[in-house]
Amino acid sequence: MKRVKVGYQGVSGAYSEMASEKFFAKDKKNIEFVSCNSFEEVFQNVSKKKMDYGVVPVENSLAGSIHKNFDLLGKHHLKIIGEVYLHINHQLLVLPGTDKRKIKEVYSHWQALAQCANNIKKFLPNSLPVEYFDTAGSAKYIRKEGDKTKACIASKKAGEVYGLKSINKNFEDDKHNYTRFVVINHDYSKLEKKGVKYKTSILFTAKNEVGFLHKALGYFALRGINLTKIESRPMPSTLWQYYYYIDFEGKYDDEKVLNALKDLKKITQELKILGSYVAGKH
Amino acid sequence: MKRVKVGYQGVSGAYSEMASEKFFAKDKKNIEFVSCNSFEEVFQNVSKKKMDYGVVPVENSLAGSIHKNFDLLGKHHLKIIGEVYLHINHQLLVLPGTDKRKIKEVYSHWQALAQCANNIKKFLPNSLPVEYFDTAGSAKYIRKEGDKTKACIASKKAGEVYGLKSINKNFEDDKHNYTRFVVINHDYSKLEKKGVKYKTSILFTAKNEVGFLHKALGYFALRGINLTKIESRPMPSTLWQYYYYIDFEGKYDDEKVLNALKDLKKITQELKILGSYVAGKH
Repeated sequence: MKRVKVGYQGVSGAYSEMASEKFFAKDKKNIEFVSCNSFEEVFQNVSKKKMDYGVVPVENSLAGSIHKNFDLLGKHHLKIIGEVYLHINHQLLVLPGTDKRKIKEVYSHWQALAQCANNIKKFLPNSLPVEYFDTAGSAKYIRKEGDKTKACIASKKAGEVYGLKSINKNFEDDKHNYTRFVVINHDYSKLEKKGVKYKTSILFTAKNEVGFLHKALGYFALRGINLTKIESRPMPSTLWQYYYYIDFEGKYDDEKVLNALKDLKKITQELKILGSYVAGKH
Repeated sequence: MKRVKVGYQGVSGAYSEMASEKFFAKDKKNIEFVSCNSFEEVFQNVSKKKMDYGVVPVENSLAGSIHKNFDLLGKHHLKIIGEVYLHINHQLLVLPGTDKRKIKEVYSHWQALAQCANNIKKFLPNSLPVEYFDTAGSAKYIRKEGDKTKACIASKKAGEVYGLKSINKNFEDDKHNYTRFVVINHDYSKLEKKGVKYKTSILFTAKNEVGFLHKALGYFALRGINLTKIESRPMPSTLWQYYYYIDFEGKYDDEKVLNALKDLKKITQELKILGSYVAGKH
C-alpha cells in the first residue's frame, strides 16, 4: 500500500508535526510526516500533488492569526478538509548532565521566548534569551553544539527526537496557549458525518466598499449562522483594499449556508469557498 | 521655550522618524525627535509624560497590520490625535567607494528584504540577504563595520545619517508600498478644523458573540458611516475571545457618530474611543 504523505513546516519535533500526528492519529502507521522548509513549500507540495495533505497553523490563542497562511489559502487552489487544536506546552530542554546554574543562554523562536519570559527570569535568572528561527530547530542546534551552557524551549517531542532532558515541563507563563491548525488537500472533504458540528471557511473581496461588510455579515446573521472568526488582509498590488476571511458554523451544502453564499456572491468581486470540515475540539 | 518631545521606535533614519518629521513638519524647529528601543517604550514614555507625542506604524499596504500596536493602544490610556501615510522608498546603500560586483551580503529587516527580493536577485545576483533587526539599524551597522563587501536596504534618511551612498534609489519590487502611522498623546485632539475629513478609531469587546459583529457594524451602516478598517485580535488570558478595532469616517462628536456609539455601548462589554483626528493623505 502506498503511504500517505503529510507535509508540515519545520524540523521533526515541531508543534506542526505534533498537530499532524494528532489529526491523523488513527492512520498513523500508513502515514509519512514530511518536514518542509516553509509554509509556502507545504502549499506547493500539496498543490503539485507531491504530498497528499498539508497541516499549517492559522491562529494562536495568545499571539493571534498567522497571516501568511491566510494569504497562501487565497493564492493556492486547495481546500481545508479539517482542523485540529493543539495545546502548546513548552518544555525547558537541556543536554543530559547539564547543571542548571551554569546555563548562560536559552534558545528558541522569539514567540516561545516571549511566552516564557517570566519563567526564564524566575528559573534561570542569569541566562540570556537568544532568538532562533524555530523551536524544534533550537533543540536540534543544542544537540549538535553539545554545549551544556545552552538550553532551549521546545516541545516534549523535540526533546525526545534530539535526546534532550526536560528540566521544566510547563515552562509557559500562560497556560491558555492553544494553536489552531488546518489540514489542506486538493479537494473538498468527502467525510459525511451525522450529528457533528461542521465549520466552513471562505475568502472574499468587495465589489464596492461602502457598507459592504455589514451587508455581507448580515446574510449570515439573519439566517442565524454563527461566525467564529473574521480577518481582513490587504490585497497585494492595490492600495488599502482588503480581502476578508470568515469561518462560520455549518456545512457548505446546508440550505441556509447555500442561501447566504448565493446572496454574498452578488455583492462580492471574488468569493472562494475554502472548504467545510468537522469542527476540532479544544 | 521648552522643546516638544516626539518618540519613535528605531534608530535615527528609521521610517518611523521620517513619518514623525512629516507629521510635525511645520513645527520641526521646536521638536526633538527621540529614538526608543521598542513600541512598548514609545507608549510608556508618552503615558508617563516623559514625551509629549509618540508616532507608531499601524499598517503597511503590502504586509498588513502591525498587531503589536493595536494591543498597545488597548493596554494604554492614550488617544490618537493624528495619522500620517509614508511612502516606503527603499534604497540600496553602501560605503562610499564600494564596488558593486564585490558585494557579498545585503543586510536589512526581513520585511524589507522580502519587499526587494526580486531586485536583490537582479541587481546583486551573487549576494546573500542577511536579516537584521531593523532597516536603519542595518545602515548604522554597515558604517560601524566599514566592510565594503556588505550593503544594506534602508531609507534615504538612513543613508544621510550614516554617510552611506545610495546605488539604487527605488529598490522595492512593488511601488505600492505605504505605511500608515498614528500619532498618540494623552488627550483628545484639540484641533477643530472645518471642511476637512475626520476619522475616529475605537476598540471594543462583545457581551455575547452570536451575531454581535453584524449588529455592531449595523449601527454604523444604517447611519451611512463608512468603515475604513476592521481588525480582530485575541484577548489575552481568554480562549478564542476577540476584541475588535474599527476606524470609521467622522468625528466622535458628530450627531450620527454619537448615536452609533450610544447603540454600540449597549451590546459591548468594553468600548474605548481611541480618538478622532484629521484623516491623513496618501
